[in-house]
Amino acid sequence: MNQARIGRVAARMREMGLSQILVTATASVYYLTGYWVEPHERMIALYLDDQGKAVLYGNEIFGLPSTAELPLITHKDGEDPVAGLAKAVRPGRLGVDKFWYSKFLIGLMEHRSDVTPVLGSEAVDLCRKCKDEDERKAMRHSSAMNDQVVAAAIGAIRAGVRENELAALVNKEFLARGADCEGTQLVCFGANGADPHHSGDGTVLKPGDSIIFDIFTPISRYWCDMTRTVFYQRVSDKQREVYELVRRANEAAEAMIRPGVLLSDLDKCARDIITAGGYGPCFTHRLGHGCGLECHEPPDVGSASHTPLEPGMVFSIEPGIYLPGEFGVRIEDLVLVTEDGCEVLNHYPKDLQVIG
Amino acid sequence: MNQARIGRVAARMREMGLSQILVTATASVYYLTGYWVEPHERMIALYLDDQGKAVLYGNEIFGLPSTAELPLITHKDGEDPVAGLAKAVRPGRLGVDKFWYSKFLIGLMEHRSDVTPVLGSEAVDLCRKCKDEDERKAMRHSSAMNDQVVAAAIGAIRAGVRENELAALVNKEFLARGADCEGTQLVCFGANGADPHHSGDGTVLKPGDSIIFDIFTPISRYWCDMTRTVFYQRVSDKQREVYELVRRANEAAEAMIRPGVLLSDLDKCARDIITAGGYGPCFTHRLGHGCGLECHEPPDVGSASHTPLEPGMVFSIEPGIYLPGEFGVRIEDLVLVTEDGCEVLNHYPKDLQVIG
Repeated sequence: MNQARIGRVAARMREMGLSQILVTATASVYYLTGYWVEPHERMIALYLDDQGKAVLYGNEIFGLPSTAELPLITHKDGEDPVAGLAKAVRPGRLGVDKFWYSKFLIGLMEHRSDVTPVLGSEAVDLCRKCKDEDERKAMRHSSAMNDQVVAAAIGAIRAGVRENELAALVNKEFLARGADCEGTQLVCFGANGADPHHSGDGTVLKPGDSIIFDIFTPISRYWCDMTRTVFYQRVSDKQREVYELVRRANEAAEAMIRPGVLLSDLDKCARDIITAGGYGPCFTHRLGHGCGLECHEPPDVGSASHTPLEPGMVFSIEPGIYLPGEFGVRIEDLVLVTEDGCEVLNHYPKDLQVIG
Repeated sequence: MNQARIGRVAARMREMGLSQILVTATASVYYLTGYWVEPHERMIALYLDDQGKAVLYGNEIFGLPSTAELPLITHKDGEDPVAGLAKAVRPGRLGVDKFWYSKFLIGLMEHRSDVTPVLGSEAVDLCRKCKDEDERKAMRHSSAMNDQVVAAAIGAIRAGVRENELAALVNKEFLARGADCEGTQLVCFGANGADPHHSGDGTVLKPGDSIIFDIFTPISRYWCDMTRTVFYQRVSDKQREVYELVRRANEAAEAMIRPGVLLSDLDKCARDIITAGGYGPCFTHRLGHGCGLECHEPPDVGSASHTPLEPGMVFSIEPGIYLPGEFGVRIEDLVLVTEDGCEVLNHYPKDLQVIG
């Protein structure tokens, strides 16, 4: 149990006028309890009231302990998973997680017609959006590992290499540095890089290709996520122009980060630079996304996010230009908003590199 | 639109006393409409009434067409995703999918207090459980490809090979045969095979190892899933005893399959054989699982599934014995229940093989 976080969530609940919530998202349960449980079709729910009282309900198969600090009420497969919750919740409004399965919510409502479910996950999500000191340390560490891994991957570029060989190398290097699991690593040669979601396949490297490494993994639960683009053997004038434009967009957006600036202003800053350079329509996605216990989490760094930056937010700054049939360039860092600016968590250089 | 399937679902709805349902699970929407949409946090819902009337609601980003047969009502990011549904549903009971997100259900209930949500996904799940002729063809094809891939993987066994090299080969061979995606392939050497969920890592093959290949992939949306266990260079008396016991359990369970037999009887048949052989506690999981548009779907083939077999059901028969620190053996086929028995979809032999 992390009592400081529980206290912050309880304060948010009071602001939202919610006296009780069920926390059921895997990352949110972990954030508050330290237990990482992927329940799949089974049920886990942390009941929390606005005074910080917490009781955990879960399938016994998860093998969790029951403690004085956090009592656990278990059920077995085949039993009604929400029977315990139905006894515990108080009449009136009950905040539930946005992604809780309807089978549980309907089950609970069938027991308790005096309870009105409302969306409650924001009480936790708003706390998770601003990383505390432990989380900042974890994210600095993950991104430092990412710097090392991208260096290893760029060092492994050679004639005849395939995208999926480099992607496998990235996974191996991440695992050697404590990654929690393997993942899909985006390694894109040449025209493949014009698809922002292309993942490494059997494509063989050719001279003149751009090479995008968009690599990400959780290490001790906290994600890193960085993109670097380099060129193989030669770089055309157009590739150089596009690269420098993307780099300027990345650096200009990072330079304006400080508390109070709107997330949408960051997107606009990067987009204006790319548009002025003549490539506006080729920057086809938002500027970035929050990152933490999930690779993509709030806040959204896009044109509709009129939310001011707050210290502790961690998100990506990843402008890109995609030219179908030709090549793509994307440059991405994770940044941490500080009291008076930002700390860029990635340190691998962004100078244009021609390899080999 | 598959009108025959829509008709069967509508008949199930009438049996269940449901006049309207929302179908939202990816595989179920595909089953009825032919559209495969992974909505992630966005909304897609097929509204269906018990007379077979169907209207699709979804985010415009999915790029679906609107047709006379299946009208589409779209919403955009940032708009209320359930506003259209809220206008369409009728007062009274509304069946919803067991895994629909609470944010949508709560949103709909806030619009429509005259609607009572109940669980409705069984109307589709019960139809999906018994494969129709098109599905049987698709599953025969996927399993035929799996037979070829396991042969290629066993053919690639050599001194010094690593689990993850064979796993990568399995993915490559599947992709060459039309697999929809890569996946985690379970290749386990020696003691790793004692963990039923171990996935291929850097472990190097040693003489005397058992080698489990539990390989599975979707091909044109329908999954195959097969396990074979072979031995490298030599086989001990204990390995041979365990292998033959697992094979007998697999074959005996398959031999008793016919409509009317209970799923739990199959589990009991295999478990009794393994228990009589002295390894009961080492068979640590259910006998099998349904398979189709999802790798794991109803029916469950376990001791609590007191449901009679019906023609068209497809599920796995996969007894295993796991000896921690030593080795594991599992043998798995997919089977299709026929009018008077079953068709085993996998044809790769089950005779004990010592390789190399």
